[in-house]
Amino acid sequence: QSNVTIYGIMDAGFVGERGGKNGNVSKVSAGVANASRIGFKGTEDLGGGLSAVFQLETGIKGDTGELDANNTLFNRQAFVGLSSKTAGTLTLGRQYTPWYNAFVQVGDPFQAGLSGSAKNLFPANGINVRNSNSVYYKSPDFSGVQAELFYGFGEQKGNSTGRQLGASIAYQNGPLNARLAYNYRNNDAASGNVVTQNQSGHNSLLAVNYDFKVAKAFFMYGANQGRNSVAYPSGSDTAYSTARVLPSTDSKNLLLGATVPVSPVGSVVVSWSSVDDKTAPNHDADQYAIGYLHSVSKRTTLYTSYGKIKNKNGASFTVGNNAESGSGDAAYNVGIRHTF
Amino acid sequence: QSNVTIYGIMDAGFVGERGGKNGNVSKVSAGVANASRIGFKGTEDLGGGLSAVFQLETGIKGDTGELDANNTLFNRQAFVGLSSKTAGTLTLGRQYTPWYNAFVQVGDPFQAGLSGSAKNLFPANGINVRNSNSVYYKSPDFSGVQAELFYGFGEQKGNSTGRQLGASIAYQNGPLNARLAYNYRNNDAASGNVVTQNQSGHNSLLAVNYDFKVAKAFFMYGANQGRNSVAYPSGSDTAYSTARVLPSTDSKNLLLGATVPVSPVGSVVVSWSSVDDKTAPNHDADQYAIGYLHSVSKRTTLYTSYGKIKNKNGASFTVGNNAESGSGDAAYNVGIRHTF
Amino acid sequence: QSNVTIYGIMDAGFVGERGGKNGNVSKVSAGVANASRIGFKGTEDLGGGLSAVFQLETGIKGDTGELDANNTLFNRQAFVGLSSKTAGTLTLGRQYTPWYNAFVQVGDPFQAGLSGSAKNLFPANGINVRNSNSVYYKSPDFSGVQAELFYGFGEQKGNSTGRQLGASIAYQNGPLNARLAYNYRNNDAASGNVVTQNQSGHNSLLAVNYDFKVAKAFFMYGANQGRNSVAYPSGSDTAYSTARVLPSTDSKNLLLGATVPVSPVGSVVVSWSSVDDKTAPNHDADQYAIGYLHSVSKRTTLYTSYGKIKNKNGASFTVGNNAESGSGDAAYNVGIRHTF
Repeated sequence: QSNVTIYGIMDAGFVGERGGKNGNVSKVSAGVANASRIGFKGTEDLGGGLSAVFQLETGIKGDTGELDANNTLFNRQAFVGLSSKTAGTLTLGRQYTPWYNAFVQVGDPFQAGLSGSAKNLFPANGINVRNSNSVYYKSPDFSGVQAELFYGFGEQKGNSTGRQLGASIAYQNGPLNARLAYNYRNNDAASGNVVTQNQSGHNSLLAVNYDFKVAKAFFMYGANQGRNSVAYPSGSDTAYSTARVLPSTDSKNLLLGATVPVSPVGSVVVSWSSVDDKTAPNHDADQYAIGYLHSVSKRTTLYTSYGKIKNKNGASFTVGNNAESGSGDAAYNVGIRHTF
Repeated sequence: QSNVTIYGIMDAGFVGERGGKNGNVSKVSAGVANASRIGFKGTEDLGGGLSAVFQLETGIKGDTGELDANNTLFNRQAFVGLSSKTAGTLTLGRQYTPWYNAFVQVGDPFQAGLSGSAKNLFPANGINVRNSNSVYYKSPDFSGVQAELFYGFGEQKGNSTGRQLGASIAYQNGPLNARLAYNYRNNDAASGNVVTQNQSGHNSLLAVNYDFKVAKAFFMYGANQGRNSVAYPSGSDTAYSTARVLPSTDSKNLLLGATVPVSPVGSVVVSWSSVDDKTAPNHDADQYAIGYLHSVSKRTTLYTSYGKIKNKNGASFTVGNNAESGSGDAAYNVGIRHTF
Repeated sequence: QSNVTIYGIMDAGFVGERGGKNGNVSKVSAGVANASRIGFKGTEDLGGGLSAVFQLETGIKGDTGELDANNTLFNRQAFVGLSSKTAGTLTLGRQYTPWYNAFVQVGDPFQAGLSGSAKNLFPANGINVRNSNSVYYKSPDFSGVQAELFYGFGEQKGNSTGRQLGASIAYQNGPLNARLAYNYRNNDAASGNVVTQNQSGHNSLLAVNYDFKVAKAFFMYGANQGRNSVAYPSGSDTAYSTARVLPSTDSKNLLLGATVPVSPVGSVVVSWSSVDDKTAPNHDADQYAIGYLHSVSKRTTLYTSYGKIKNKNGASFTVGNNAESGSGDAAYNVGIRHTF
């Protein structure tokens, strides 16, 4: 039993959404600041700086008790591998992409949660976030520089069908934390013996934060090209009309944000982010968001936030939160996050 | 890891059922006395009498390993919230109704299990038992008096569509334990933008037990009005005929029962309960049940029980147990319940 | 929490398959040497040599995080019961058959894993392996002799419909470990009130291993008669042609194998196994396999293996591994198994 650590987050709050075609929505949501989850992980010291590691993480809808994905018990993470202090970490299984790690760990002051989640405008969903059947390598830290490499097997007819490749390079030095990440996805599809060739998708991201002590500043710039480089979260593409709005195949994202400690236990988070659609429909959008987090203990935080999106030319972005994609162009919430 | 407690029950036994249209049934069942389950819970002391609490509870079919509800990992309970010694407990998630808490904690000597489960005749199934997307408040104890309040969001088009409200008031004093509970469910249904208005359901329950030392006496009286105030458990409505028997929309329940300690480790449980259908079909029923529980340790109990229902005028009640609804008008069982 | 032990295996590796109708397959697999799993178990001492026991074991696809069977959280094992030092162990739930216990614990040097898994040719799949709604009894050890008895309720119309019976007798003495096992399955099927009578299936198995110190030798002989006595693993029956190849209803299996320790932490495993089909299609097959396991610690092992099958007269056996049935007549793998 000492070989396994149980950990998790239970997050629940009240959410109000405005501006969608179905009007005002009031609900209890779980996973507003962070997705509710329960996980099991362990490390075995093999000597000589080497260790074996594993992790299994279940995503749950804390308001209904449902799995976040049907029949996928460990949808969030499931991997095993070896970690060496001198040679880096190699793991196999269902894992995050380097692109998403850069996005959530470095670039978004809302860390992909609350009404200000940069996921509302940035293409952080589906297999851009995590991938089954993947190999992940993280280098050791070389004077602040670290690299991540990622290969996701498509496991379909043909070696390249449906595969995904990712990489990132990180630089950390005192108050500066910067990461450049890239993700490639092969969109070919196999049906029996026939492989249909499709355009590939490419996502690049530069994420930087800098701690000025009075505030921590955040910057992100993303470029997304090709099929499936961007996808509306489930439901967002019909939030304002019954006809489905198609995602762009050539767009840029920008984010500016900050976290400002206002007391020993409270901090304000703000961000502005945008989509610049380079294709003909010109589905641009801006998002403004503010949030406040109040730590009642090391493990328990109360939160509230508000986010507002301006969709242009029929764009169909929605203000969601970490676990839900939202139903309109504005949303507020108030809730609790408890880690264990 | 010390933040999480793992707990559960594994219950398994042999069940024989008689009197249904498919004849005699012999089987291995799990969840006869109590539903088999495994759960994770924790409490964090926040100081000043305040604490953060969470609970996640999986219902399992211990005889097959299946989840008790498809894709709902924590179908039994999933909530997080704050608990204060002076202000009470407020939790959000998937939770029991005050009506069901009164039913199982105070009113039924069989505690909703074994062949004598009062669930066989009382409307303790579906969302009368527990509700997703709910807010639950339990007051502190004021000289033996405690209140529970419950609100379950319908999370459909329209503020009231599908919502559920509940409340109870409890009084505990020495050997006396009494609770009065009420549950309201809005039966409106939304399909896209169209909300269909339906009659609401109402359940009231008075549950009392009194410990005379030589025996503990139990009394319950319930009144159920409106659509969905009563529902036959899955399968019971076709147990005796191929045509489905419809539930009543106006009925009363009564229960008299007792638990009698017959040795330091053994106790006999008996109950008589009834349904008085006030609608035209007059689907009344009586149930007689007896059980014996033998504790082989603090955590492990052997049990046996027998229950018999007299259905009148084509009523379709069945003798089930905690986790199964039964196939006929009589059933016996023998098994083991192990808590961990 | 001290009442529950969490345990499990995370296994992941690279697998290459050859010779199937879809050509070369490269993939990340989990469950190559052993199926990835996480479980919860406990024992309560009841005094006098008696204890209560329970176990709940989840099978997971470690490469995707999915459950190994839809909606069955504890598909591998789920049981509760009593264990006595003098009277044996009686458990109820979802459990292994005596036939499979003999196969995996005594007869197969690959322990049903890696490319050499004897499951590739022996009928170790479906309810031959484990059964829901079952009662299992294991006798105490009488001077090296132990018996297992197994009864799986069909839980369908008619007492015998779909039921399964099993038994084994084991003898262990110094370097010798022998077991004779038998499994019977009733293949009748109920549809509503109508029970269709079908031929029953019978499997017998003699499994022996002997530890010569320089090597441990393995021998298995199996006889399989009747409907469903043999089944191709899912997908294997169409691995080489689009038309489904039917399993034999009268066949024999043979295995010769050895594990050879080549260093304090390394061992080589080899086996030859065969199918002798006694029916007209004469679907015989041979399998040759070799593997190497290298323990980097008590809990972590690196492995590699290669297996090759010669199918005769249109037989459709495939080289799989513990959790996957394979796509062709040859396969290799390299990976890691981490127990916790």
